[in-house]
Amino acid sequence: MKIAIDCMGGDNGSSVTVEAIKNFLSKHKDVKIIAVGKKEELKDLDGLCEIIDARDVVPMEAGALEVMRMKESSMFKAVTLARNKEVDAVVSCGSTGGFLSVSTLCLKTIPGVHRAALVSPFPTKIIGKKVVVLDIGASNENSPEELLQFGLMGKLYAQNVLGVEHPVTYLLSNGTEEGKGSPEGKEAYKLFKESNFEGFKGNIEARNALSGEADVIVTDGYTGNIFLKGLEGVAKLMGGLVSKAFKKNLWSKIGYLHVRKGMKELKDTMDYKSTGGAMLLGINGVVVKAHGSSDAYSFECAMNVAYKLTNSNIVEKIKEGLSK
Amino acid sequence: MKIAIDCMGGDNGSSVTVEAIKNFLSKHKDVKIIAVGKKEELKDLDGLCEIIDARDVVPMEAGALEVMRMKESSMFKAVTLARNKEVDAVVSCGSTGGFLSVSTLCLKTIPGVHRAALVSPFPTKIIGKKVVVLDIGASNENSPEELLQFGLMGKLYAQNVLGVEHPVTYLLSNGTEEGKGSPEGKEAYKLFKESNFEGFKGNIEARNALSGEADVIVTDGYTGNIFLKGLEGVAKLMGGLVSKAFKKNLWSKIGYLHVRKGMKELKDTMDYKSTGGAMLLGINGVVVKAHGSSDAYSFECAMNVAYKLTNSNIVEKIKEGLSK
Repeated sequence: MKIAIDCMGGDNGSSVTVEAIKNFLSKHKDVKIIAVGKKEELKDLDGLCEIIDARDVVPMEAGALEVMRMKESSMFKAVTLARNKEVDAVVSCGSTGGFLSVSTLCLKTIPGVHRAALVSPFPTKIIGKKVVVLDIGASNENSPEELLQFGLMGKLYAQNVLGVEHPVTYLLSNGTEEGKGSPEGKEAYKLFKESNFEGFKGNIEARNALSGEADVIVTDGYTGNIFLKGLEGVAKLMGGLVSKAFKKNLWSKIGYLHVRKGMKELKDTMDYKSTGGAMLLGINGVVVKAHGSSDAYSFECAMNVAYKLTNSNIVEKIKEGLSK
Repeated sequence: MKIAIDCMGGDNGSSVTVEAIKNFLSKHKDVKIIAVGKKEELKDLDGLCEIIDARDVVPMEAGALEVMRMKESSMFKAVTLARNKEVDAVVSCGSTGGFLSVSTLCLKTIPGVHRAALVSPFPTKIIGKKVVVLDIGASNENSPEELLQFGLMGKLYAQNVLGVEHPVTYLLSNGTEEGKGSPEGKEAYKLFKESNFEGFKGNIEARNALSGEADVIVTDGYTGNIFLKGLEGVAKLMGGLVSKAFKKNLWSKIGYLHVRKGMKELKDTMDYKSTGGAMLLGINGVVVKAHGSSDAYSFECAMNVAYKLTNSNIVEKIKEGLSK
């Protein structure tokens, strides 16, 4: 297996991606990495993996057209490797918009796919169980047909990556009744029903999204993005308050020693970093977007996501699933 | 001041509202309560407040037309008291859709208001500071003009209810740049800019909504509802994990004793129950919707919201603000 890494463009610079690659390689002898970026910043990788020099860095706020013109950028070069089938997957923590655009334009959507979707597993109340939510931000608006297809792609992801045999799928909505939802959501509901979508259970409210009932939750990209970031925000706020509670004084620090194990469970459950990266589902390749603010640990997790997705042959599975 | 209470229709029955009324009255000698509901269930209130018998209870899933036909229901009768100016405010924990419909239809929107908005203050990272988010679910779709007006109503709410002199207002969006957002959000951005809306600072991402930067956050009702319920869900999930951590064994229970104070701070900050109720802003009256699953404490909080809103003269303030 070969994975191309766009080493540049993240909030924390190339040192993070370099460290992640070193850690990843120490655990995966079966993977070849191609690191793309300013070669003088990637010196620590000499002898460990192939390095491709790229002089430009795509800025965070780059738009689609801008990235497509930046042919000397690490991002463009990394995606090009995937297009030329020289690698099986590509990972970046650079500009989300830029990476999604260049990936979609270079790799193209799978025949029959209306729109690619950004997908990530979320923690649930049931320890170890994840729920797949898509789209969490590749699109701004989605048609009912696209939502139905997201359901299918999400189901295939849950089956092949998370190992759920019969995934339970819901539409994210502002109420559980059939008549609830955005105009597109209501239409999508009908399409799910008409197509006898296996495992479709109707609408789910955001408050129950992490309850563990659902394996797959379908939403338009705008709402999915608000949902994702809202969760991140409140998890961070609460995490901060918990830490603060334990740091008040010597006694509270002693208190921490007594609940360390339980708190680790909390941290592991809510650790969005460990989910690592979101995959762009529906295009001809494994494309994983790591968080812009990734540290070495979370970038390594994103590389693990790419590894797992490649192994699961998710792209072929989606092609097969769609042709049925 | 007089407040009408729809005592029926909540998930936990009339015992909750009866207890809340008793508690509320013991603290507020300046308020007269009119309790509306099945009189045999309201016996405990005899002598404490006026009771109006109502034989029907609006079911949770009731639609607009259904409620308007249920003239003998506690909800309809309570709202009618507000329409006839017999009370200053009305509070219910019954069907959200039903209550919003009957309130809007009976009390009518304030002249010039395109659409009423459901508004609630949320906790932020800054202790004691709240952020007002609207609409959190009165509408399913909103036009750019409606979003602009939500901004104005939210600003007046922050000024008059929360006492923020110069509220900072943002649009909820999937990115901070001007070009981000739903189609309506993008148009609304232009309207805010063109009108030189005082305190408008552009887009805010959901992950920063509770950071304390914003006093007012404007969103369409569908997205706002997903945002609200997403927060509720993750707060509940994390709260459960924290409790679990402390209940593991004797040592963890001792640990709790050491961080009790800090944990209370966390609980107070994230306690959505204490915000009590959401107000329907933009109609001719103070209309507070308590959570369907309210207990006596949270229903009393909702009554406090109604009390505070009536005292702040919010309806007149919005009328004045809109006429400018």
